[in-house]
Amino acid sequence: MKKKINASILIIGNEILSGRTQDKNVVFISNWLNSNCGITVKEVRIIPDIEKIIVQNVLQLSKKFHYVFTTGGIGPTHDDITAQSISKAFKVKYEYHQEAYNILENYYGKKKFNDGRKKMAKMPKGAKLIYNPSSAAPGFITKNVLSLPGVPSILNSMIDNCKEYLVKGLKVHSQTINLYTVESNISKQLEFIQKKYKKIVDIGSYPFFRLGKIGVSIVTRSTSLLKLKSVNKELIKLVKLKNIEILKL
Amino acid sequence: MKKKINASILIIGNEILSGRTQDKNVVFISNWLNSNCGITVKEVRIIPDIEKIIVQNVLQLSKKFHYVFTTGGIGPTHDDITAQSISKAFKVKYEYHQEAYNILENYYGKKKFNDGRKKMAKMPKGAKLIYNPSSAAPGFITKNVLSLPGVPSILNSMIDNCKEYLVKGLKVHSQTINLYTVESNISKQLEFIQKKYKKIVDIGSYPFFRLGKIGVSIVTRSTSLLKLKSVNKELIKLVKLKNIEILKL
Repeated sequence: MKKKINASILIIGNEILSGRTQDKNVVFISNWLNSNCGITVKEVRIIPDIEKIIVQNVLQLSKKFHYVFTTGGIGPTHDDITAQSISKAFKVKYEYHQEAYNILENYYGKKKFNDGRKKMAKMPKGAKLIYNPSSAAPGFITKNVLSLPGVPSILNSMIDNCKEYLVKGLKVHSQTINLYTVESNISKQLEFIQKKYKKIVDIGSYPFFRLGKIGVSIVTRSTSLLKLKSVNKELIKLVKLKNIEILKL
Repeated sequence: MKKKINASILIIGNEILSGRTQDKNVVFISNWLNSNCGITVKEVRIIPDIEKIIVQNVLQLSKKFHYVFTTGGIGPTHDDITAQSISKAFKVKYEYHQEAYNILENYYGKKKFNDGRKKMAKMPKGAKLIYNPSSAAPGFITKNVLSLPGVPSILNSMIDNCKEYLVKGLKVHSQTINLYTVESNISKQLEFIQKKYKKIVDIGSYPFFRLGKIGVSIVTRSTSLLKLKSVNKELIKLVKLKNIEILKL
């Protein structure tokens, strides 16, 4: 029987932390993991390109969660220090991975395979490769830590190659009901229903603004489709009782 | 003399963690803090709406950084538990804040001031208000933790009201040079320059794709404008030596 499997995402990169670049990998990885593997992301951290900090966070998160996905810091420049930091965290050698070396040498050709590019073949000893169909440089998995690049288009093209390393868990199903009302109009009833289904169905309430009108999205989430449907029935009943308009999207 | 002041951002919300909603507050807060207050964001965490986890993270981050900015979880529904969790973290009462109560009662009118709305006036004892010009419900500061809403438009409208509580630090200046080249073509030289200006100027290298061409953004960051200019002079020299095309944006 499938179990609940969780993961965390560790975003390594000054460019995200400084606000220069908008992260897009959390949304993508989180949705992909849930839809394809039944794995739930439970924590995300964004940290700078500093070895000591990467080491600390890799160790903390790899103990706390079934899987850790790192993004960023596996390119050819001096600020790409994810592989060496993970080696340090797990006290294994940081060395050339023969297969990665061959892939990159073949991709660039012997003449153009310079030191920067060679760096992308250096990984923690014993790492297994996550193949990259876009730009050759592979990601890698070290214990329960999967390291992917920061560029979203490349990461997206590689993610399916993570599957073979992941134990599948229980998918979280979700449903959204969009209402033309304000949160405080239904907060009491929502709380009542949430208490009734505590730890079985998660009910979230999120205000939105659309076409000049204020609304609320009620999002229910559960690993049990049956329970999810029961809660949604109760929610629809409540909405009708209160004469609240449901927004069809 | 101004010092280096840092902050962290704690995003509280299942909707961000699950990938349902794209966070936009990190980019905004990080840029605003640096530009307006000379405060640098050093860590971001995204966590679920679970009291125990909020308590742990608030305590950890408030010890580690000068300021913590929380986003989300201060609305009227059952899943809005930021205020009660911060009260628990700092072992202070979770109670009505008289001024917040008055603001909200005045905004909604006595008749429409229901329990859900009253909830938004409950805060950690001793909290000070961060006024909200969009939708009345104030944020608040407890010790070094500033709590803001999750809805970006409301958060953005309130942020200037955080200023009075913040000690100003050294602004990080940054400059970007966009080049039509690949990272590995300049990685050796970048590393050399980075080593020379270690801990004074931070050099980041980020690949981009534009109009079908591959390029690299070299981003330099420093609290010293003078040093930043020196590094950029060296970078331009290097680029010219290598006959690399600079992209004017």
